[in-house]
Amino acid sequence: MTKLYVVGIGPGSYEQMTLQAIHALQTCDVIVGYTVYVDLVKAHFADKVFLTTPMRQEVERVRLALETAQSGKTVAMICSGDAGVYGMSGLCEELAKAYPSVEIETIPGVSAVLSGAAILGAPLMHDFAVVSLSDLLTPWETIEKRLLAAAEADFVICLYNPASRKRKDYLMRACDLVLRFASPDTVCGIARNIGREGESITVLPLKELRETEVDMFCTVFIGNSQTKVVNGKMVTPRGYVYA
Amino acid sequence: MTKLYVVGIGPGSYEQMTLQAIHALQTCDVIVGYTVYVDLVKAHFADKVFLTTPMRQEVERVRLALETAQSGKTVAMICSGDAGVYGMSGLCEELAKAYPSVEIETIPGVSAVLSGAAILGAPLMHDFAVVSLSDLLTPWETIEKRLLAAAEADFVICLYNPASRKRKDYLMRACDLVLRFASPDTVCGIARNIGREGESITVLPLKELRETEVDMFCTVFIGNSQTKVVNGKMVTPRGYVYA
Repeated sequence: MTKLYVVGIGPGSYEQMTLQAIHALQTCDVIVGYTVYVDLVKAHFADKVFLTTPMRQEVERVRLALETAQSGKTVAMICSGDAGVYGMSGLCEELAKAYPSVEIETIPGVSAVLSGAAILGAPLMHDFAVVSLSDLLTPWETIEKRLLAAAEADFVICLYNPASRKRKDYLMRACDLVLRFASPDTVCGIARNIGREGESITVLPLKELRETEVDMFCTVFIGNSQTKVVNGKMVTPRGYVYA
Repeated sequence: MTKLYVVGIGPGSYEQMTLQAIHALQTCDVIVGYTVYVDLVKAHFADKVFLTTPMRQEVERVRLALETAQSGKTVAMICSGDAGVYGMSGLCEELAKAYPSVEIETIPGVSAVLSGAAILGAPLMHDFAVVSLSDLLTPWETIEKRLLAAAEADFVICLYNPASRKRKDYLMRACDLVLRFASPDTVCGIARNIGREGESITVLPLKELRETEVDMFCTVFIGNSQTKVVNGKMVTPRGYVYA
């Protein structure tokens, strides 16, 4: 048996990797990933062989990793954030059926819902829903249904992939759906370039979020009915009582 | 200004902490936490002062941390998993208003929704909802509403606090709510003692999950309509097409 580690590297800085992820990248022979993520780790693991594939070639990337592992190398497939949240761990498990000599181990990492929340303050704290606005692999009707359900049940909502060049108005459409149930003054937050150069946050009401242009480096948080602004941060109370 | 780090230590093993969390615990003077979590890290930071409070004394614990920081010490408040997911970061931000000389920095960690998913395979992968079944701080009606909404919109659902001594039948009640919309054969998973001694997983259909007794060391995953079993693991396809 050879090993394929599917590794969540966190938001991007070496400091936000887990020790387990660092050790997997240290012990493997080959690191496979999307070009941008490989560039994030390359300097720290300079003696490794790196194999990259461009965006949207996920099936090819996973097969490359599995074939390399089958040939006897220990391989680490890296994903930004967590490998299991819109990452590669699912596809690795699915395609591994054809490579019975390869054992898969997923190493979790700090996904943007957690790292973004940390710089915004404490927006989650309570029950929350994570929804991707990308309709590349999911029909928009499904996304719409989930946004409406999450808003109606007063979940804190975290939006991944809130925009791209081709989907400029998707955040506005998502806000309009949430506004059917939530107040226009609902406290929201944008976390940008988490853990990387140019990291920044914006805390703003839902009615303003609707008018805001975001890009693919943003993760968006929509509070629940209890979320408030505390010292400029976005905070959802858990419900503790104090004098 | 003095610093209060609110640190997510991950599921429990030193290996699953981020470097950033380790560095915060190394540089602080005092580590504050719930007794059980302090015991998890104590051996690795033996030269620190430790202050503990029992369960359910969260307000006292946060005030202790803030007062210690205000006295000039650098303090780290530790939480299991992530500090912002049913953790202490919200209460720290709220109570910090009375301690203006203390600056709060939250350091995210690998929460059970991510670490549990990693050992089960790839149950999340797509949009998901996180719901705590504890009704200590949340009315059961709110929990019920969220479970129904998440099930109707076909979210993968992750349940925190699925049971306690006083809430033995809560998982059964939650399953019955989900069963109003989901098939009894929906693939589910239980992750137990994640990252600790006795770590184990169970993959089973929803109708069997309903009959299963869990405890406070379990995190429960209920798949969406597409979730399947692959090589004994729980996998939710993202939607990639492959031959």
